[in-house]
Amino acid sequence: MTGVEPDGLGGLDGLDGLNALFAPRGIAVVGASRDPAKLGAALARSVAGFPGYVALVNARDPDPAAGVHASIAEAAEHGPVDLALVCVPARGCADAVAEAAKAGARAAVIYGGGFAEAGPEGERYQRDLAAVAERTGIRLLGPNTSGFLAPGRGLTASFVPGAADVPAGRIAVVAASGGVNHALAFLLAEAGHGVSLAVGLGNGVDLAAEDVLDHLESDERTTAVALHIESVADGRRLVGAVARLAATRPVVALVVGRHDVGAFAASHTGALATSWRTTRAALAQAGAVLVDDERELVDAVGALSLLRLPAAADPGVGIVTAQAGPGLLLLDDLRGRHAAVPELSDATVGALAEHLPPLTYQRNPVDTGRPGPGFAAVLAAVAADPAVDLLAGYALHEPAAFDLPKAVDAYPGTVPLVLGVGGAGDDVRRTRRALLDRGIPVAGDPHGLAAMTGALLADARARHRTRAASVPARRPAGIEPGPGPWDEDQAKALLDALGVTTMPRRACADRAEAHRALAELSGPVAVKLLDAAVLHKTEIGGVRLGVRTTEELDVALDALRSAGAPRFLVERMAPAGVDLVVGARRDPVFGPVVLVGLGGTTAEALADVALRLAPLTVSEAASMLTELAGRALLEGWRGGPVLDPAALAGVVVALGDLLAAHRGLEEIEINPLRLTHQGLFALDAVCIAAEPEVSDGRTDH
Amino acid sequence: MTGVEPDGLGGLDGLDGLNALFAPRGIAVVGASRDPAKLGAALARSVAGFPGYVALVNARDPDPAAGVHASIAEAAEHGPVDLALVCVPARGCADAVAEAAKAGARAAVIYGGGFAEAGPEGERYQRDLAAVAERTGIRLLGPNTSGFLAPGRGLTASFVPGAADVPAGRIAVVAASGGVNHALAFLLAEAGHGVSLAVGLGNGVDLAAEDVLDHLESDERTTAVALHIESVADGRRLVGAVARLAATRPVVALVVGRHDVGAFAASHTGALATSWRTTRAALAQAGAVLVDDERELVDAVGALSLLRLPAAADPGVGIVTAQAGPGLLLLDDLRGRHAAVPELSDATVGALAEHLPPLTYQRNPVDTGRPGPGFAAVLAAVAADPAVDLLAGYALHEPAAFDLPKAVDAYPGTVPLVLGVGGAGDDVRRTRRALLDRGIPVAGDPHGLAAMTGALLADARARHRTRAASVPARRPAGIEPGPGPWDEDQAKALLDALGVTTMPRRACADRAEAHRALAELSGPVAVKLLDAAVLHKTEIGGVRLGVRTTEELDVALDALRSAGAPRFLVERMAPAGVDLVVGARRDPVFGPVVLVGLGGTTAEALADVALRLAPLTVSEAASMLTELAGRALLEGWRGGPVLDPAALAGVVVALGDLLAAHRGLEEIEINPLRLTHQGLFALDAVCIAAEPEVSDGRTDH
Repeated sequence: MTGVEPDGLGGLDGLDGLNALFAPRGIAVVGASRDPAKLGAALARSVAGFPGYVALVNARDPDPAAGVHASIAEAAEHGPVDLALVCVPARGCADAVAEAAKAGARAAVIYGGGFAEAGPEGERYQRDLAAVAERTGIRLLGPNTSGFLAPGRGLTASFVPGAADVPAGRIAVVAASGGVNHALAFLLAEAGHGVSLAVGLGNGVDLAAEDVLDHLESDERTTAVALHIESVADGRRLVGAVARLAATRPVVALVVGRHDVGAFAASHTGALATSWRTTRAALAQAGAVLVDDERELVDAVGALSLLRLPAAADPGVGIVTAQAGPGLLLLDDLRGRHAAVPELSDATVGALAEHLPPLTYQRNPVDTGRPGPGFAAVLAAVAADPAVDLLAGYALHEPAAFDLPKAVDAYPGTVPLVLGVGGAGDDVRRTRRALLDRGIPVAGDPHGLAAMTGALLADARARHRTRAASVPARRPAGIEPGPGPWDEDQAKALLDALGVTTMPRRACADRAEAHRALAELSGPVAVKLLDAAVLHKTEIGGVRLGVRTTEELDVALDALRSAGAPRFLVERMAPAGVDLVVGARRDPVFGPVVLVGLGGTTAEALADVALRLAPLTVSEAASMLTELAGRALLEGWRGGPVLDPAALAGVVVALGDLLAAHRGLEEIEINPLRLTHQGLFALDAVCIAAEPEVSDGRTDH
Repeated sequence: MTGVEPDGLGGLDGLDGLNALFAPRGIAVVGASRDPAKLGAALARSVAGFPGYVALVNARDPDPAAGVHASIAEAAEHGPVDLALVCVPARGCADAVAEAAKAGARAAVIYGGGFAEAGPEGERYQRDLAAVAERTGIRLLGPNTSGFLAPGRGLTASFVPGAADVPAGRIAVVAASGGVNHALAFLLAEAGHGVSLAVGLGNGVDLAAEDVLDHLESDERTTAVALHIESVADGRRLVGAVARLAATRPVVALVVGRHDVGAFAASHTGALATSWRTTRAALAQAGAVLVDDERELVDAVGALSLLRLPAAADPGVGIVTAQAGPGLLLLDDLRGRHAAVPELSDATVGALAEHLPPLTYQRNPVDTGRPGPGFAAVLAAVAADPAVDLLAGYALHEPAAFDLPKAVDAYPGTVPLVLGVGGAGDDVRRTRRALLDRGIPVAGDPHGLAAMTGALLADARARHRTRAASVPARRPAGIEPGPGPWDEDQAKALLDALGVTTMPRRACADRAEAHRALAELSGPVAVKLLDAAVLHKTEIGGVRLGVRTTEELDVALDALRSAGAPRFLVERMAPAGVDLVVGARRDPVFGPVVLVGLGGTTAEALADVALRLAPLTVSEAASMLTELAGRALLEGWRGGPVLDPAALAGVVVALGDLLAAHRGLEEIEINPLRLTHQGLFALDAVCIAAEPEVSDGRTDH
C-alpha cells in the first residue's frame, strides 16, 4: 500500500491509554503457556514478531531461561510494559489487570469469555474488572474478544492464526465482535486491501466503539473506517464520535439485528441488541455510509479508503462499459441505490462519436463495444461531461484488446474513477492490483462495482447534508408545556405555538358551550371526548365526525357522555387528503428521536417510517421523505395534494426541538397530520409526560 | 471436479442442432483473419486446442499452406464441419450461414453486432439470418454474442481471453448476454467451481434460453443451472422449460430490470425488457431459485451444484458457529430469508453438553466457543436433532485448533452440510478446495453462507410446492361468461358461479325496484350505478353507501341518476374488515396471471402484491400470502379478522381458472375483496372483455 509505513516507536512518553494499547513500546503476555493449544501459547506466538519489548509471564510455571517471568512486575524490570495481554481464566483477570497497572501497564486486553455473557458469576468478574479499570485508569479491551491487529506496527495482539498475514493498509476495522473483526480483516485482505488497525471489542467493559473511533481521528494511517455494531450503550456518544470522524474519514457501518436475533445476541455480548432502525438512522444522520452485509462493507470501505467525492447533493455517475450485459446489471443496481445517471450532453456524445462505432449506445451508460486502445479516450470524454461527477467503468479482462492500467494512466482524472474488471486467474488479479496501486477502487463484478459507486455517492451526499447540520438544541421561543398531562386541546395549543396548523376548535365544558362552538365554527365539525387521561379516544367511541346540525350534535354529545367524556372538543372538519404520522419520542439509547410515516392501518402494518435524531435541520428532516416506500402518495397521487417537503420538515423539526428542549416531555405525536390541497393540518395530537426517573443527562443535549 | 470428464466424441451421427453446436465433431472459423486484433483471429486462437477437426476459412485471403480454406465447402472436404463460427460483418452473415448449412454444418455462432440492436438495416440483416435458419434448419447462436464455452469438451467458442482457463465442472450458465455469460463463468471459477457449458444468447435470432434449457435436461455433466434473463419472448415456453429442468436439476435465476433500464436494455438486445415482477413470479412458480445479484447467483448455483435437499415445506436449519459474531450475522441474514431455525430438542442440548463448555449458547445457533477437535461431534449432535434438515457451519480458518476437512470426514452425514470458512491466503483456499472436493458447499463469509443456505431451502420448498402443481386448465363447470361487456351484477353472477361469496343484491331497473330491494335486503345498503360501460363508478359519484331509509334511498337515487345511472345495484352493506385486491389478467408474454394485494390507496402506492401464472394450485395460491409485506393485517391485526389462506387461495384459483378457460375474458378483478370476521366478501367486481386481436394461441394453454 502506498504511503503507509510503520511510524517507528519513538516519542511515546506520555502515551495515553489507547496509544498504550494500539502502539505500545512493550508487551507482556500474562498466562503464557507451554501447552501449544492454550490461549497464552497462541498469543505468545502471535506477538513473537513484535519489534518492541515482549515479555512472557506465568506465575505458576516461570522459566527464567526461556524468558518466562514469574510476575508482570518482574517482566517490567527488563523493559517497558505498556500493554498486558491477559490470558488467564475469568476469575483471575481482575487481579492480573491490577498487577499489570501496578507494574506500569496502561492498557490490557482480556481475551477469555466467562463474563457478563455467561451468567451471574461472570457478571461479578466483569464488575471486578470494571472496578480495577476505574481505580487504576488502565484501559481495557474485552473481555471475550480475539483482540486486535496493528500490522503497520508489527503487532498481532490476536490468537487467530493467519491474522499476522493481514497486510498493513489504510482501513481501520472497529467490530463489536472479535470474530467479525477477523472475518472483515481477512475479507479486506482478499480484496487487495490492508488494515491500519482492526479491533474486536467483545464485552466492552471499558473500551467501546466510540473510544476507538475517537482514537482514529488522529491516526494518519487510517483513511477509512469499517464499523460493525451489535448493540449501543450510549447512543449520543457513538453518534458524536462518528460525526467527528466522518468529517475527515469516511465511516462505513454494518448494523446487526434487522431481524429477531435477540436471545442469541444477548448470550453473545451480554447486552440486548438495540433498535436496528434507530441505530441505522442515527449513524446515517451522523454521516456514516450504511451497508447491508459484510461484502458490501468491504466494497464500500475499500473504495472510500482510496477516494472520496466532494460533498454534493446528488452527484452524477457516468457509466462506461465494454460489455452491454454487465453494464445493464450495473445500471439496474445503481438505480436501486438512487444514483443519478444523467443523459450526456450533445458535446459529449459528439466527442464519443470520434472514438466509438455508431452501433453502440452512447448516452449513459456508454457501451464501447469490444474495447480497444481508445478506451482511455472514451473515459476522458465521459468524464468531461458537466453532469458527470464520478466515472464507473466495467470491462472483462481482455489484455489482448487493451491494457486497462495503461488506459487509466492516460485518463486525465477529470473526475474520480471506479472500475470493475471481470475475469479469473492470476493475470486478472495482477491487473486489479495494478489499478488499486494507482488509487483506483476496483471490483470483480457489476454488483461490487455498484456497491462501491453507491458508497461513494452516499458519502458525498451525507457530507453535503451534514455540512450545515450542526444545530444547537433550541428551546422553542415562548413555549412552556408545563408538567402535563395534556388533553388534546392543550396538545394542540402546543402545536399552535410551534407554528403547526390545526383546525379551528373550541374546548367545551358542557352542552351549551358545544352548541355555541358549532354555531361559531359553521360547517361540519368533529366532536371529541376531551380528557387528558384518555389516549385512545376512537377506540372507546370518543370521536364523532361530520356533525352538521344541532340535532346531530345532541346525538353526538349523548354518545360521548355515555363514553365518559368529562368535556368536549368541537373542531371544524378538515378537507380530505392523505394522512401522515409525525412524532417525537425519547429513545432509551439515543434520546430524542423524530419519526415520519404514512398514516392509516396499512402503512402502520408495513412500518413505512423514517427516523432521525433530534434536534435536526430542516434539510435533514426533508430528506426523511425519500425513505418512505409510499412517498408517491404525497406527490399528487391520482390528483391528490402535493406535499411541500419544507412544510413537513418544519413540523418535524419543531417537534424534535420541543422534545429536545423539554425533558419533562416523553413523547408528542400528531396522528394524523393530514396533507390537503390547502396544506398540512394536525387533526389529532397526543403529548405524554416523562416519568421523572426516565430523564437523565444523556437524553437532553 | 469429481465425476466430470470429457465424454469423447464418438457416436455423434444424427447430431441434432444443439449437439452440433455444443458437442461438434468439427468446427470451421469463417472469417479467420491474419490480423491478430480481429475477431476471426481471436476465435482461431480460442479453438486451437479443440480436440476435434478445426478448419479456418477466409474467402478473400485463403492460405492453403497455413490451412486457411477459401470456403467452408472446401473445409468440409477435409473433415466434418458440424459447427461454423461466423466472424464476418453483419451484412455477410446470412450468406455465410447459408454456405455453412450447404456444406453440412448444422449449427453456427454469429458473433458480431450490427443487427436488430442497431437500427433498421441491422433488423434486415437479422431477418435474413432468421430466414436462412428457417429454410435450412441450421441452429444459430447469436448474433451479438461472445459465444460459449464447453470446457469438458475442450471447446472455447468464445473470443474472450482467459475463457479457456475456466475449468470443466457441473454448472451450466445460460445468459442473455455474452458479457454476463463470461462474467459469471469467471466468478464461478474464482469460487472454485467449473462449468459444463456456458452460453451467451445475444440477440437470440434462433436459440433462446428455453432451447438451451431443454438441451440441458439430458446433459449428464450438468448438476445445476445459472440462468440470466434480460427479456422474455415466449413466457410459457420458458416456464415449461424451467419446470421440466428444475425437476431434475436446480435452476437459479437472475432477472435484470427491477428498475427502469428500458432505453439501454432496448439498445442492447433489440427487445423491450419484460415485466420484472411477472418474470420473477413465473420463474419461481416453475421451480427456479431467484437471486438478486451475480454474487448470490454464484453462491446459490455453486451450493446447488453440489447438493439438493429433499423436497420439504419448510426445512429446519441447524447453525453451528465457532465465533458468535459471524454466527449472529448469519442468523440475522437467514431470518431475512424466512429460514426456519428451530430450537434444538432437550436430547440434543444434552448431547452438546458433553462436547461444549457451559458458557456457550447451545440452543440454535450453537456457539462452540473456540473450536477444537470436538467440532465434528458438535456437528453430528446438531445434525441428529429431528428438527434439523440442513446444517450450516461457520468457522474462522484455525488449522492449529482443528482440522475442518478432517472434521467433515468424521461427520456422519445425517443431514447435508454447508460451511463458511473465514480467512485469507493460500492455506484457506486449500481448505475450501478440500471441502468442495468432499462435496461440501463452502462460502468465505457469513453472507455467502446465508445465500447458499437460502438457495438450498428455496429449492427444497419450490420442489415441495411444484410436486402437486401440475394442473390442467379447467373450464369451471357450468360457467359461460358470454361475450361481455359485463356490468357489476353480471360480474358478481360470475363470482357467485365460481363460489366466491358476494353480498345479497338486486339489480334494479327503476326506483320502484330499488325501493323493493331496500325492503327485501333489510338493513343498510350500498346503492350503485349499474352500467357495463362505466368501470370507475366511485370517481363519477356512482356509489352511495350506508343507505338505511326510503328517504335516504331517494336522495341516493337522485344523485345516481344525475351521475348518469341507467340502472341501479342495491346491495346489502358488508361488515367492516380489511380490504384485499384479487384479480386475473392476460399478460402479453406470460398469458393468464393472477394477482393478490392489500387494498386501499397506501397498499396500491406501495405495490404490495404477489403474482402467479394461472392456472395454479390452491397451495401455490396460498403461498402468495407470504410475499405480502403487509400480511400482518390479515393475521388478526389489532383484533381484526384472521384470514383463512385456503379461502383466499380458492378465490385466486377460481379467477385464474376462469381466465385460463375463457379467452374472451381479458381481465377480472375483485376490488375490494373484504376480509371480515364472517369470511371473505367480494364487494366490487370488474370484468373486461378481450379485444379479439389480443387473443392468440400462446395465452390460452
